[in-house]
Amino acid sequence: MYAVIMAGGGGTRLWPHSRRARPKPFLPLVGSESLLQATVRRLTPLIEPADVFVVADEVQLPLVRQQVPALPADHLLGEPVGRNTAVAVALAALLVERPADEVMVVLPADHRVRDEAAFRAALATAADSAAHGSLVTLGVVPTGPATGYGYIVAAPDEARVPEEDAARRVGRFVEKPSRERAQQLLADQAGVWWNAGIFVWRRDAVLSALERHAPEVIGPLRAGLAAGDPPARIYADLPARSIDYALMEPASVEGGVRVVPVDAGWSDIGDWKALHAELAAALPAGAAGVVAVGRAEDLGSSDILVYSAGGRLVVTVGLRDTIVVDTPDVILVCSAERTQDVRAIVERLAAAKEDEYL
Amino acid sequence: MYAVIMAGGGGTRLWPHSRRARPKPFLPLVGSESLLQATVRRLTPLIEPADVFVVADEVQLPLVRQQVPALPADHLLGEPVGRNTAVAVALAALLVERPADEVMVVLPADHRVRDEAAFRAALATAADSAAHGSLVTLGVVPTGPATGYGYIVAAPDEARVPEEDAARRVGRFVEKPSRERAQQLLADQAGVWWNAGIFVWRRDAVLSALERHAPEVIGPLRAGLAAGDPPARIYADLPARSIDYALMEPASVEGGVRVVPVDAGWSDIGDWKALHAELAAALPAGAAGVVAVGRAEDLGSSDILVYSAGGRLVVTVGLRDTIVVDTPDVILVCSAERTQDVRAIVERLAAAKEDEYL
Repeated sequence: MYAVIMAGGGGTRLWPHSRRARPKPFLPLVGSESLLQATVRRLTPLIEPADVFVVADEVQLPLVRQQVPALPADHLLGEPVGRNTAVAVALAALLVERPADEVMVVLPADHRVRDEAAFRAALATAADSAAHGSLVTLGVVPTGPATGYGYIVAAPDEARVPEEDAARRVGRFVEKPSRERAQQLLADQAGVWWNAGIFVWRRDAVLSALERHAPEVIGPLRAGLAAGDPPARIYADLPARSIDYALMEPASVEGGVRVVPVDAGWSDIGDWKALHAELAAALPAGAAGVVAVGRAEDLGSSDILVYSAGGRLVVTVGLRDTIVVDTPDVILVCSAERTQDVRAIVERLAAAKEDEYL
Repeated sequence: MYAVIMAGGGGTRLWPHSRRARPKPFLPLVGSESLLQATVRRLTPLIEPADVFVVADEVQLPLVRQQVPALPADHLLGEPVGRNTAVAVALAALLVERPADEVMVVLPADHRVRDEAAFRAALATAADSAAHGSLVTLGVVPTGPATGYGYIVAAPDEARVPEEDAARRVGRFVEKPSRERAQQLLADQAGVWWNAGIFVWRRDAVLSALERHAPEVIGPLRAGLAAGDPPARIYADLPARSIDYALMEPASVEGGVRVVPVDAGWSDIGDWKALHAELAAALPAGAAGVVAVGRAEDLGSSDILVYSAGGRLVVTVGLRDTIVVDTPDVILVCSAERTQDVRAIVERLAAAKEDEYL
C-alpha cells in the first residue's frame, strides 16, 4: 500500500497568506505543522514515509524536500505546469513502479483532519474494498448543507452486503450544489456524503479505468513518457481534467465505484471562513468566536479571525463576522460572508499584472 | 494682531497613525499639508507667520521648526509637560510680549476648515469685537446634534445690537451633551453653536480674566517665570485646567463673553469616523462612501475608510461602516460606530507598558 499526495493548486481563496511561491499545502494554518507535513504524518503507521509520494509543481519540489525530509528524493514527482488532478493521478500511476495489485491511496495535501485514527481506519477499510478491484472514494459524513463541496450519493437500490465488502456502491456524483439543492440532498437520501477528493484503488484498476474513461489524458502522457519527451512538451498538450469528472463520474455510472464513510473532523479549509470555523472549534467558552493567530488585541468584537503573519500588532474594535489577515506586504479585511470572493481579488491583481502580490 | 497655536495633546483617537512621537497636528490627514501647516497657512493674509506663535510639548519643537520654517525661532514655546489649555494660554499671554491692547487669537493646531476665507472673515469680526474688551469665541454653526463637542448658547434676553458689536453675548457653555440633549439644544434655541476652542481677545483682557477666574493657574506660572525657575519645576505643581472650564464658563456668567458664528466647513477630525466624513465629502457620486488613502483595492464595500500609511496593499471585501488603518507596526480595524473606543485600546497598551506602540 502506498500513498500519492497531490500538492498542486494555487489556493487563491486563502490569499494573501497563500501565494504562488508558497501555496496552501506549505502553510502551517492549524498548529505548527504545514498541511503537507500533517498529511504525511497522519498516514503513519498505516503508510510510512518510505511509501509516500508527492506530486507538485516542479518549482515547489525544494519546498517539499525541505518540509518532508523523510521522503526519499525520488518520491517527489514534479509537474511543469498544473493540469488538474486526472493528469496528476495518471502521472503517479504510470511513474511509480509498484506491483499492479498494490493499493494506491491518493489524497490532497491541504486538508485538515481532527480524528486521525478514525481517518486511518477509513483508509484501511477502503483499502480492503479496493483490493477487490473497486475504485473507492472516502465520503465525508456531512455536518450541514455545505455548498463548497461536491456530494457522493449511494446507489439507491443496493442492499448492503458487509460480509463481502464494507464499502457501499456509489450511485452518482453531484457537483457543488446550491444551498437549496444541498438541503434537499441531505433530506432525501440516507447515503449522502461530501466528496473529499480522497481515492483508494489498485494500481492496475486505476490505470485500466483511465485507459477506458480518460484515454485523452493517459494516452498522450504514456506515449510522451515512453518517448522520453521533455515534460514541458508533454504537458503542453494535455487536457486539464479533474479526476472526478474524467474518471469517477463515468466509472460510477457503470457501478465500479464504492464509498467508505468517514467521520473524522475533516475540513478542506477551503477559505478563510472555513479556517475560522476550524480554529474557533478549539476556543474556550465565552471567547465570542474571536480567534487570534499572532500578535492581536481586540475590544468588543465577535466571530472574527485575526491572522497576523506579518509580525505586526493587529487591533480590532467592535467587528462582527470579519476576517483580518496581515502579511508582510498585503492586508486583507473581508466580510466572513464574502470569503469566497477573495479569489476575485487575486484574479483582478493577476489581470493588472501585479505579480508581486500573487 | 497675533496668533497663538496650541499644538499639544496626544490625539489618541487617531491612533495608530497618531503617535506620541508624531501626534495629530503633525500629520497630513487631509491633503499633503500637516494640520499644523494648514493652520498657519489659513491665517494668512489676516495674520502673517511673523506674528504666529506655537505652544507645544518641548520634545515636539524640532518637528514644529521643521514643518513651519517660516516661524521665527523664538516664536516656539515649549512646555515640559501638557497641563491643558488654560496653562498653555496663560504661558503665551505672559511670555509673548506684545502691547497690552493687541488682539491675540488662540487656536488649536489640529482642525480642518474647508472655507478658509469665511474662517478668516469670522476671525476679523471677532477681532473687532475683542478690541472693545470682550473675550470672544468662535461658534461653529452646527450641522447636526453632535455629541463630541461642547455647545455655546447665546444669552436669551439679549437684543442684538450690530451697530455696536457684531458678536452676540454668550449665555452659557454646555459640556459635551448626550444625543438627546444635543437634539433638544438645537430644537430649543436660535443661538446655539459648537465650541471649537478658538478664542479672540486683547492680551490685557485675557490676562486680567485669568487673574480673576484662574489665579491658581496664572499665579504660580507668573511667579515661577519671574523667579527663573526651571519649567519642569513650575509645571510640576500647576493644575491641569481647560480654558473653557477655568476661564470661559465663569466669565460668561458675568456677561463678559461673546460669540461670532462661523460656517466654514469646520471639523476637529476628532476620530477616524470624522476623518472618514471629511474625506468622503470629496468623493465622486457612486463611490458608496469608499475612501482610500494609499494603495488599496476594494470589492463590494460601502462606507469604509482605508488609510494605508504603512506602504502595503490593503484589500477590503464586502465591508460596511468600517475603518482600516495600516501603519508600519500596527494595523487597526474598527467598526465606524466604535471609533471613540480607540482611545481605550491606547490606554490598555499604555497600562501594559507596550510603549513601542504608543
